[in-house]
Amino acid sequence: MSALRFPDLAPSEPQGSDLLAQERAKTTFSVHDLSNYLYGEEYLQRQEKMLTLIENEPAFDKSDRYFLGRTERFAGALRKDYALVKLSQEQGWTPEEFQQADILIDEPGPFGLHRGMFMPTLVSQGTEEQQEKFLKPALRYEIIGCYAQTEIGHGSNVQGIETTATYIPETDEFEIHTPYLTASKWWIGGLGKAANHAVVMARLITAGKDFGPHAFCVPIRSMEDHTLLPGVMAGDIGPKFGYNTTDNGCMWFDHYRVPRISLLAKYSSIKPGSGEYVKPPNSKLSYGTMVLIRASLVGYARIGLARAVTIATRYSAIRRQFVDKDSPKKMGKQVIETPVLDYSMQQYRLFPIIAAAYACHFTSKEMMRLYYLNIKNMASGNFSLLADVHASSSGLKSLTTTMAAASIEECRRACGGHGFSSFSGLPLLLQDYAPNVTWEGDNYMITQQTGRYLFKSFRDLIAKRASGKFNASSITNPTLAYLNTYLDNPNLKCPATSPAQFHNPEIQLAAYGHRAAHMIAEVVHGLDVEKRSWNSMLVDIYNASVAHCQLILVQNFILGIRGDMPQPEGVAALALSPTAKEALTDLSDLFALHQIHKQPGEFLTSGYIDAKQVSMMGKAIMDVMEHKIRPNAVGLVDAFAFPDYYLNSALGRFDGKVYEAYTEMATREPINQTEVVDGYEKYIKPFTNPLGKQGKTIQARL
Amino acid sequence: MSALRFPDLAPSEPQGSDLLAQERAKTTFSVHDLSNYLYGEEYLQRQEKMLTLIENEPAFDKSDRYFLGRTERFAGALRKDYALVKLSQEQGWTPEEFQQADILIDEPGPFGLHRGMFMPTLVSQGTEEQQEKFLKPALRYEIIGCYAQTEIGHGSNVQGIETTATYIPETDEFEIHTPYLTASKWWIGGLGKAANHAVVMARLITAGKDFGPHAFCVPIRSMEDHTLLPGVMAGDIGPKFGYNTTDNGCMWFDHYRVPRISLLAKYSSIKPGSGEYVKPPNSKLSYGTMVLIRASLVGYARIGLARAVTIATRYSAIRRQFVDKDSPKKMGKQVIETPVLDYSMQQYRLFPIIAAAYACHFTSKEMMRLYYLNIKNMASGNFSLLADVHASSSGLKSLTTTMAAASIEECRRACGGHGFSSFSGLPLLLQDYAPNVTWEGDNYMITQQTGRYLFKSFRDLIAKRASGKFNASSITNPTLAYLNTYLDNPNLKCPATSPAQFHNPEIQLAAYGHRAAHMIAEVVHGLDVEKRSWNSMLVDIYNASVAHCQLILVQNFILGIRGDMPQPEGVAALALSPTAKEALTDLSDLFALHQIHKQPGEFLTSGYIDAKQVSMMGKAIMDVMEHKIRPNAVGLVDAFAFPDYYLNSALGRFDGKVYEAYTEMATREPINQTEVVDGYEKYIKPFTNPLGKQGKTIQARL
Repeated sequence: MSALRFPDLAPSEPQGSDLLAQERAKTTFSVHDLSNYLYGEEYLQRQEKMLTLIENEPAFDKSDRYFLGRTERFAGALRKDYALVKLSQEQGWTPEEFQQADILIDEPGPFGLHRGMFMPTLVSQGTEEQQEKFLKPALRYEIIGCYAQTEIGHGSNVQGIETTATYIPETDEFEIHTPYLTASKWWIGGLGKAANHAVVMARLITAGKDFGPHAFCVPIRSMEDHTLLPGVMAGDIGPKFGYNTTDNGCMWFDHYRVPRISLLAKYSSIKPGSGEYVKPPNSKLSYGTMVLIRASLVGYARIGLARAVTIATRYSAIRRQFVDKDSPKKMGKQVIETPVLDYSMQQYRLFPIIAAAYACHFTSKEMMRLYYLNIKNMASGNFSLLADVHASSSGLKSLTTTMAAASIEECRRACGGHGFSSFSGLPLLLQDYAPNVTWEGDNYMITQQTGRYLFKSFRDLIAKRASGKFNASSITNPTLAYLNTYLDNPNLKCPATSPAQFHNPEIQLAAYGHRAAHMIAEVVHGLDVEKRSWNSMLVDIYNASVAHCQLILVQNFILGIRGDMPQPEGVAALALSPTAKEALTDLSDLFALHQIHKQPGEFLTSGYIDAKQVSMMGKAIMDVMEHKIRPNAVGLVDAFAFPDYYLNSALGRFDGKVYEAYTEMATREPINQTEVVDGYEKYIKPFTNPLGKQGKTIQARL
Repeated sequence: MSALRFPDLAPSEPQGSDLLAQERAKTTFSVHDLSNYLYGEEYLQRQEKMLTLIENEPAFDKSDRYFLGRTERFAGALRKDYALVKLSQEQGWTPEEFQQADILIDEPGPFGLHRGMFMPTLVSQGTEEQQEKFLKPALRYEIIGCYAQTEIGHGSNVQGIETTATYIPETDEFEIHTPYLTASKWWIGGLGKAANHAVVMARLITAGKDFGPHAFCVPIRSMEDHTLLPGVMAGDIGPKFGYNTTDNGCMWFDHYRVPRISLLAKYSSIKPGSGEYVKPPNSKLSYGTMVLIRASLVGYARIGLARAVTIATRYSAIRRQFVDKDSPKKMGKQVIETPVLDYSMQQYRLFPIIAAAYACHFTSKEMMRLYYLNIKNMASGNFSLLADVHASSSGLKSLTTTMAAASIEECRRACGGHGFSSFSGLPLLLQDYAPNVTWEGDNYMITQQTGRYLFKSFRDLIAKRASGKFNASSITNPTLAYLNTYLDNPNLKCPATSPAQFHNPEIQLAAYGHRAAHMIAEVVHGLDVEKRSWNSMLVDIYNASVAHCQLILVQNFILGIRGDMPQPEGVAALALSPTAKEALTDLSDLFALHQIHKQPGEFLTSGYIDAKQVSMMGKAIMDVMEHKIRPNAVGLVDAFAFPDYYLNSALGRFDGKVYEAYTEMATREPINQTEVVDGYEKYIKPFTNPLGKQGKTIQARL
């Protein structure tokens, strides 16, 4: 029992539950319908079913999550991962069901990369024989694997990794070796403690020649007792900002011999004996996986944004501070302090995040559609989509994960002091989300991939236009479309003369298109005409990628609401009710205009927008936030349909009982379990009562 | 002994130590001289002396800091705080010496608020009798106190707190009571476990009248055995994003009686018996403390910026990734991968942070000078400085702590994946720094105080100019000076026609002044002419405050380098060597121009700067970064003179032995102390070797 007793007190009026009820009564659309539109009914029903299962399993209990140190949290995550696999096996879950449970439980564990990278690599790069040998036991978790690519000295530059795998013809083996400390495998999820196998990226050396990084599947721990195998040294890399429930590991090889079959040989192989290297077919297929991962990170950015802003919005409807003298808030006849959600600054901080979450929803759906379409196209030899999809997925991964990380922190701060408490649910979310800006391509670095495609498209388009054989109506690619519009008239001016006109989606799209094209044109001018080096233009390249990807987000949001976005084959379009459509249109307007208003620089320098128009947009935004979005704010986050179990937040609870939950959580703090702190005798008493009981008089004296 | 053995390997060439030596050889100024200029020789010598003392005391050891859970870290902090007080008493430290040691040890502990808020409040608000009773034993740590103002329902709006202190004439006592759950005292540093007394802010109620919040000094734990006193319930509020070594606490009072002397009565008091309330003299003196705290937060922002960028800059000189094909880097004759510090994007991310750290240095010095000058003026009845100093300190607190928090995260990300490791030193810094954006006035909210002053100054100036009695040459206040220049010609255009001209500080100052004045004019127009509500203009008010405070930072940086900044009375000006002056001028240029280039919107809409000039500034920045700042980058951060003990970072080490230190730290991870993870038998073996020893064949089969 806690030494801190929870007092039997109620919060002063009005109660959080009443305030949220009032908010929900104001919502102009059906939250239930909007949730269905976002996720589909089947998903939501499955979520209910899953929740019941999960909340009943002690291994998935979250009540001690914020109190434990790393060692205990890792132990808990191992237990959780075991229970999750067991439950999945018992229930016969589909991969979708498994993923849905995994999201709800929301704790990256030691088996995550086994599923996320180890098995997918065996599928994509293993021969049939290798899949039989490695993948089948892996599916049963007999083999638990990790994906060991990154080294302590090389992350972004995979070609620079230093671990070697030298073919030994005499024994038909590879010798895997760590030549330098910089070649230490590092950051490898699941390697620290859990994995008994690893896909190791190492430089393939045969007949004295270095063929660069290749993937090898090798055992690292004993199948009998889990001890490290001779020649392998591995462990955990220690505590991190987040992800402390995963055993990111390090590994060194000391002339470690593995059989030839370890080289994953779907694309390239070694001839036994001679050691002759057999080249991979010149394949772009490997881009596919990268696109898939980056596209799914856009979806996870949506979740991060939506989750943080659900907590901050609900709490801001309950948190009251000061009476706004110009417009005092009443509840019944009583003047109450103003809920912070009524302050325009709080709206300016939070509502664009609600809008961004919805924006990412539509773009994430579209990226997944394009991914599957491209895979299908490539299978029949059509690579026409690949470059665009790869470029967009890189830039969008960078943009949306940067947005989400910043927004989670913004939501944390928007909860005032209480956002600093772990019980808000926001610190751990921030910490576990943080790696998204770095992994799968550092967010600054990968925009170069987007840039290269954009600049090439621009140059090609100019050449085509100059060739005389150009037919504008033949353009179907949206990137070429906006570049072409710009080239038709680089000096175009925005025609809007009133705030209301900025609600016109064509004007929004024209502003984003003109700005992106202008920035691309400027970089191409710098590179081709001024002959500046690529390095000297990295900032402009990054900004051009951001501009391009913001346009994509705005575009898909607009098309998505209109119902004009193509559906994946065989998937029926869901209908958006007119009231929900109106509410989302308000968000889409805010999403498009807020970014211009907050950082108008590039729109102004592109020449399309002028200073007066920026000021008009400010008025349009303030108006839509106060009159249209404010009444719907709680409904719009409720529609994300995150259960309290998932949010694990005292501030973001559906029922609004914020202070009750928050106080109750504090009673469970471990250092509250004794009334007098451990250490009192040694570190406090020598000052406050050095004479012991004889010091009784002190209290009286004071 | 760790089960993870550190391999006997060296990093591949070139070594970090050689790369840093090469950087240091390029530095154009004396690092030692610049450090002396920043801190004074005495401070640096004292730092050396302190370090020796501190590094020899086991309670101050940092080697396990990143591994411990909250309970252990709090226990360690209590031990540390005890040892620090003991050492200070033994050594007879001055407050300055104590503070310097405290900064080096760098761990917020349970006694921090006793020194930082409890005792200062007794000094400023206690009568002589009360100081005798409470302050004297507090100085000996016989009383350990905390400052209980914030409640779970009220932070920013202090006037709204709900705890009551009702005067009982019959017994000449106050009855302190917590009427609602929302009145729970919350976030109170040191209250959770350590304090035996508290200054409690409670609504003073006497003779049926509520006189609002007043400070009471009351015992809360027994001086004999540290148990809670009857009528008081208190404990720790639980885990937080950072500051987990401090016992932020919560507290409830149940009709708790304290004698009348508990009311801190320097300014207001109660007449015994009648309970008549004696009003405080109408004093603005209390603003003084707030100004002091906010001004010192500017200094701490400087430290946060400088510390993070020291780590990121040193590591970026060592971290190599890719060969830049346009300009391959050589070390001797060998082409090496390019240090990431050579990439223009990395420079654009880090160098403005180095510049910002120096900018905050000069402004922090100036704010402290103004604070002491104002205190002296006020003592002789001169309140002329107060409004300006209060407004600037609020806006600067907001701006510089926001900058520092964002920059620490930027530095963390700029270290790539390794910035996510606790061993980089950046996650804990980020977490412990984070509350700065919220405490002492939420960073959005307090800019309203700056705004009010700016708008009033603007209106007064217009009235004065219209009065016919106006004499421009009489203006000495720098805020009025830039507002007046703007009013002379609101349509002024920047005359610069080449990148080089932007190095002219007069042009920089004119751009910042014109932009700030334009924004202030726009808000005043909105409020006074368009009659918009204060609430509807909060975004513009915030932006106007930022603009004003960026101007102050730019201005003080320029004046400071020139040697034109006034010195505090009795303090001799230190000389800046010509080479260091040049290096700082480059930073000052970057600081001024980078902010315009990165967010040119307001400069463009103010009409002073045009799109072509923004593009010229981009060139000026890239040029100064590549050619002037890049060679000095490591020297400029070395000059901050942070010892390795303070940084506690594998990546930021002075000697450049990054990978060696990083790997060694990992061997100390607690879960590396056993080779086979706890939990293997229960959670891994059932999958991988369900039959136990009989499963020996599995390994062979795989």
